[in-house]
Amino acid sequence: MYTDAARRSNSTRRFVAVQRLVGLLLMLFSLTMLPPVAVGLYYGEDTIPAFMAGMWITIATGAAIWWPARRERAELKIRDGFLVTVLFWTVLGLFGAIPLYVASDAWHSVIEAIFESVSGLTTTGATMVSQGIDDLPRSINYYRMQLHWLGGMGIIVLAVAVLPMLGIGGMQLYMAETPGPMKNSKLTPRITGTARVLWLVYSSLTLICALIYWALGMSLFDAICHAFSTLSSGGFSTHDASVGYFNSAPIELAVTFFMVVAGSNFALHYLVWERRSLRIYWRDGEFRVYLTLFLVFSVLVCAPLVYYDTYPDVYTAVRRGVFQLVAYATDAGFATADPTHWPTYVPLLIVLSTFMFGCSGSTAGGVKMIRLVLFVKQALRELQRLVHPSAELLIKFDGKTVPNDIVYAVGGFFSVYVGLTIMLTFAMISTGLDVVTAFSAVAACMNNAGPGLGSVNANMAGVSDTGKAILIFAMLLGRLEVFTLLVVFTPSFWRR
Amino acid sequence: MYTDAARRSNSTRRFVAVQRLVGLLLMLFSLTMLPPVAVGLYYGEDTIPAFMAGMWITIATGAAIWWPARRERAELKIRDGFLVTVLFWTVLGLFGAIPLYVASDAWHSVIEAIFESVSGLTTTGATMVSQGIDDLPRSINYYRMQLHWLGGMGIIVLAVAVLPMLGIGGMQLYMAETPGPMKNSKLTPRITGTARVLWLVYSSLTLICALIYWALGMSLFDAICHAFSTLSSGGFSTHDASVGYFNSAPIELAVTFFMVVAGSNFALHYLVWERRSLRIYWRDGEFRVYLTLFLVFSVLVCAPLVYYDTYPDVYTAVRRGVFQLVAYATDAGFATADPTHWPTYVPLLIVLSTFMFGCSGSTAGGVKMIRLVLFVKQALRELQRLVHPSAELLIKFDGKTVPNDIVYAVGGFFSVYVGLTIMLTFAMISTGLDVVTAFSAVAACMNNAGPGLGSVNANMAGVSDTGKAILIFAMLLGRLEVFTLLVVFTPSFWRR
Ligand SMILES: [K+]
Ligand SMILES: [K+]
Repeated sequence: MYTDAARRSNSTRRFVAVQRLVGLLLMLFSLTMLPPVAVGLYYGEDTIPAFMAGMWITIATGAAIWWPARRERAELKIRDGFLVTVLFWTVLGLFGAIPLYVASDAWHSVIEAIFESVSGLTTTGATMVSQGIDDLPRSINYYRMQLHWLGGMGIIVLAVAVLPMLGIGGMQLYMAETPGPMKNSKLTPRITGTARVLWLVYSSLTLICALIYWALGMSLFDAICHAFSTLSSGGFSTHDASVGYFNSAPIELAVTFFMVVAGSNFALHYLVWERRSLRIYWRDGEFRVYLTLFLVFSVLVCAPLVYYDTYPDVYTAVRRGVFQLVAYATDAGFATADPTHWPTYVPLLIVLSTFMFGCSGSTAGGVKMIRLVLFVKQALRELQRLVHPSAELLIKFDGKTVPNDIVYAVGGFFSVYVGLTIMLTFAMISTGLDVVTAFSAVAACMNNAGPGLGSVNANMAGVSDTGKAILIFAMLLGRLEVFTLLVVFTPSFWRR
Repeated sequence: MYTDAARRSNSTRRFVAVQRLVGLLLMLFSLTMLPPVAVGLYYGEDTIPAFMAGMWITIATGAAIWWPARRERAELKIRDGFLVTVLFWTVLGLFGAIPLYVASDAWHSVIEAIFESVSGLTTTGATMVSQGIDDLPRSINYYRMQLHWLGGMGIIVLAVAVLPMLGIGGMQLYMAETPGPMKNSKLTPRITGTARVLWLVYSSLTLICALIYWALGMSLFDAICHAFSTLSSGGFSTHDASVGYFNSAPIELAVTFFMVVAGSNFALHYLVWERRSLRIYWRDGEFRVYLTLFLVFSVLVCAPLVYYDTYPDVYTAVRRGVFQLVAYATDAGFATADPTHWPTYVPLLIVLSTFMFGCSGSTAGGVKMIRLVLFVKQALRELQRLVHPSAELLIKFDGKTVPNDIVYAVGGFFSVYVGLTIMLTFAMISTGLDVVTAFSAVAACMNNAGPGLGSVNANMAGVSDTGKAILIFAMLLGRLEVFTLLVVFTPSFWRR
């Protein structure tokens, strides 16, 4: 009885510690509303009160949450990681909506502002602004992209440090590969160390990206904003026409390049940088499959575009096809064309690619390339097993044997992901969308890709309020790799 | 070296034994063309030469295959079971097409006749006859339904005796539950024993079904034909309007009842009959889920039909809704309505039901209810595992613990099934169908359900020749529970 009481009291202490953390997080987040104020001041915009209001509300709430818990320093356990992760995206998503709702009437309701904010932080990049993004105050546009960029920072830590430890859908595979103390269940020191290194890589790449965009002809403002939304695989743009606005092949090439960079593992970028060797990329099995599949899918997308004369010449067909494939597949979601009416299977293939391509440890969404590979290998193994029922068949990846429990966790992850995709698609059909549009909207949000097909391609303002709520849920679900969010809804999670 | 040579020679002997079996099978199958001849004689139709031609070609080919191998009595091994099973459906499918192609110009090409024959034998029930089924000679219509019925006999043995032994996608779960010698790898005695018992159940139920149909007002001919295509979950009809032709609520009720019977486990029917206790049904976990899910789905289907006033009154909405749901879900595929333009999610839900409902050991297609249940349980377990990472979590079904390798085999089965559905859907889109129609056609054929949506609802004559070939492949793939067919294409299968 004594130990039980002690355990319970310890569990209460950890809840208080989570409360402290969320309070701190909010206060920290409130400070991110200052840069947009600076942008607003620089361009003489009337959005300053909105951002200040957002900041004060956020800081006050954060302080009120933090104050009663300020002395609690109980070590967090792995299980608390789920709660912190879920709260990070939901709470920040809510408070991030304040300046949008206050500053502009581009968002007609609270839910539209929350949609935009969550879409920003989850780096989904689907927008509620139906037209006139070009006319939005620059401070607002800057703020939208900054949400992307901050969300991207969160994702990298989530993907490289938190999820492997939580053991989400086989991601414990990557436990051994990140630095820091492994076997203990203390979250904080490990995450801090990994985060610092990866944020440096992320920030450096963003800086390089911005400079290149600027050099290729974007305005400095556009260059910074688009660098934010490229490296985060976000996809918000300062223009209704997205990257198509610039109408420049070199810019499209640069965006394509950095989308591919953002869609691959940032821990890998770190290694390459540390060891000064590009060969490290090619030695990574996931990265190899990622590039190879891009080649295969490029052909599958471009061949029908050329065959059916969708564009006046082959050059345009390939240019539009590859850009749009990479934009969807890396879940960045920029646009130079709308693939809705591209011939035969191409629109569906492009939507399907949003599930598949993102690498683990990237800012992309979806089920992640490594899981796809293990999934296919498991299927092939079942086939082998029929011929050799008594043989022990091992699954290897990158020369290492993958433990069976990881392979099966991947299977469980897939089933839940597919099941939820189907259920959410049905929910979206019920709100009045046709099957393909509904599916593409769910894929766009679950995979944090951004654009869907048809009426949910350029923006999602036309979706009903229920539909918007469903899609907000889908964005969070995808960003939290499904299980992190679902687990918080299970009774046994709260039975400590 | 000696043992290796001996093994190889043994393997050759088993091939020859398979050859002998296929020859015998063909000769036996040729005899099934005699009943249609009798029907033709009775109604004075000019189809007798066509059936006689079919019979002689089949018997001659069978004899030619059998003769050189007639003395080979090597015991077949489990692995040979794959080959026999695949050859059973493909070879009989091919030869079964002969009378159709010769007798009638309703089938415009060889591929259309093969489609019809394979659709018959796999109990898919999708037809190539675009109109005028009512005008077909009765001997032809009888023959079509008889193909269903024979296919159904094959499926029951396949499902209850062969697949569990082959270990397809977790079906070894049922190994322990069928009578006969278990641990040895000899196919023949086990199958013969099980088959005899189950065919008796199958035939008795068919007889009862025919009598009831007749009593409710069908002509004797229609009653026999529809009993054939009900118990086999086939779905061919002697009328363009399918069951809608009779316009009779009692008949629809009887068809619904027997579709549900055909969609559940025939080994269970046998047990109920043997022990004279209906409670055995309810004690079976798979059957309970099957009935419960019918209730849930009936509400999901009928509610929108009522809400959106699809039919003039609630009675008609429920009558049409439940019949069509059961027809699709049990993969029988009869029709009293076309659900293509039913409101919101209903058409897609009905197509989805074709994957889910059929029980193991039934004549229905799809992934089978038991696999669905284990699949969901595995997903929930992965969720539990996150909260209790070190606990050993067992999956139970019907009070028994399901071994992990079975759970994972189910996972592998699902992944391959979903993957192939997606790939075949893409292939069908390439032949010119829109996404929903293509998906529904693939679901209709893979799950051996029969009708799809839109242009592939009433018949599939409008599909291109490539599309027809793809769908024939899909029907075989589904009927052979995917793995049986795929495994024959793996190199290691042939490396003995
Ligand atoms: K995105
Ligand atoms: K059928």
